Amino acid sequence: MALQRYKLTIAYDGSDFHGWQRQTRPEGAELRTVQGVVTEAVVRAVAQPVRVQGASRTDSGVHAIGQVAHFDADTRIPTERVADAINARLPPDVEVRDARPVHPAFDACTDALEKQYRYRIWVGRRRPLGERHRVYHCFTPLDADRMRQAADLIVGEHDFAAFAAAGHGRESTIRTVTACEIEQHEGGAAPELHIVVRGNGFLYNMVRIIAGTLREVGRGRFDPSHIHTLLTEKRRDQAGPTLPPQGLCLEWIRYPDPPAKVDNSESDSCSI
Amino acid sequence: MALQRYKLTIAYDGSDFHGWQRQTRPEGAELRTVQGVVTEAVVRAVAQPVRVQGASRTDSGVHAIGQVAHFDADTRIPTERVADAINARLPPDVEVRDARPVHPAFDACTDALEKQYRYRIWVGRRRPLGERHRVYHCFTPLDADRMRQAADLIVGEHDFAAFAAAGHGRESTIRTVTACEIEQHEGGAAPELHIVVRGNGFLYNMVRIIAGTLREVGRGRFDPSHIHTLLTEKRRDQAGPTLPPQGLCLEWIRYPDPPAKVDNSESDSCSI
Repeated sequence: MALQRYKLTIAYDGSDFHGWQRQTRPEGAELRTVQGVVTEAVVRAVAQPVRVQGASRTDSGVHAIGQVAHFDADTRIPTERVADAINARLPPDVEVRDARPVHPAFDACTDALEKQYRYRIWVGRRRPLGERHRVYHCFTPLDADRMRQAADLIVGEHDFAAFAAAGHGRESTIRTVTACEIEQHEGGAAPELHIVVRGNGFLYNMVRIIAGTLREVGRGRFDPSHIHTLLTEKRRDQAGPTLPPQGLCLEWIRYPDPPAKVDNSESDSCSI
Repeated sequence: MALQRYKLTIAYDGSDFHGWQRQTRPEGAELRTVQGVVTEAVVRAVAQPVRVQGASRTDSGVHAIGQVAHFDADTRIPTERVADAINARLPPDVEVRDARPVHPAFDACTDALEKQYRYRIWVGRRRPLGERHRVYHCFTPLDADRMRQAADLIVGEHDFAAFAAAGHGRESTIRTVTACEIEQHEGGAAPELHIVVRGNGFLYNMVRIIAGTLREVGRGRFDPSHIHTLLTEKRRDQAGPTLPPQGLCLEWIRYPDPPAKVDNSESDSCSI
């Protein structure tokens, strides 16, 4: 046996988690986080200490169907049983959907090429009730066509400083949004508008601020061309509000075709 | 102004309620119930004491989109604003979908002619995650055709003693099931089987025991004809288990066309 790196694809209902990233309260108690719960399940499955490193630090209340993480372990569990072995030790609000061996240099965070997020807006007076932890409830009608005009202006390489929460801690606020689409869904208990955003990386709260800004466009407070102003003047206080976390879901993360890195020296350094 | 009877149609996510019926713990603290929360909202809306009486005592964790209740109040709130006035005082997991004045003799419970319940079974290994409070998760495949054969045998007037929880407290266990259908839903994140049951009344836990029995038929433990045996031998221990509450939803309750009762003496006795 030898140390093997595994790539996990993870889905979770973020409602009862304090986000992805492991954290402890000032008094030392550990908060319930997805990283913490998954790490504990992996440690119990492979019976050795592991570090589980995720691609995206989703906030408290944010959901995922395609979070990606990696860890190294030396285990006799057959590859096709690794996901089951972890799932058997996970609570019902998180699930490993795929586990596969990868090149030892694969890094879930730094190798990510593109991510897709979806922000669900439930429109109308009827309450979401059982859906309330998975949508943002907007009482006022939204003009999807106006929102599409604004969404089109978000696509491209821009300085998204106006769409970043204060304290984002990143040197550069330049990102490339590869798609920003408004989907209308009429089939459910209420009409929904989904804002689907793809990009090579996102600043802190960026998708939720994009959603809040597009909502303001949709209800007529901003003109679609206001996006131009935001991208050039870069003032956060001119953008819309940060919409609440429960509407947001990390859908998928795209990586280069395997192997992610083919540098064998790195490989050797990892297979102790 | 005079005392007016109102009929409410109420929807709720039952996850965080101890069922419909108001109840207090032995030490006197009131549990969070739908009846309690709705009563409090109505009292605050109409600024007078009221009793809100429901049609169906749904259990802890059971949902509703068509619970019906009635209350009497003497209020100046225009009829078309009564639902809004109550909703403004309700928490986000319960909603009045309709409020209308009715004949003073209308009784939500005793006037009900027919009710429809839906029991959702999420089938497969993938976890329901965000849906986990609204479905029962069945890991094993279910044969919908076998379940349909069994469901057909449930329809009709029968003694449903085998499908009643002990301590149901009803003199007669004879009920008429007007429909029992198996619906297959493939569109969502996992295939679902829904058991849709309509009838003139239900014994305690009856729909959940029907669902548990049909599950046993679906996975091959019972033959469809076992329903015959249950209806004739009336032994609860020969039926399937009571499936958990979260899969169950009260969909609608049908009443006679208004007025429910046209006896004016009763009317007068109520309009103080």
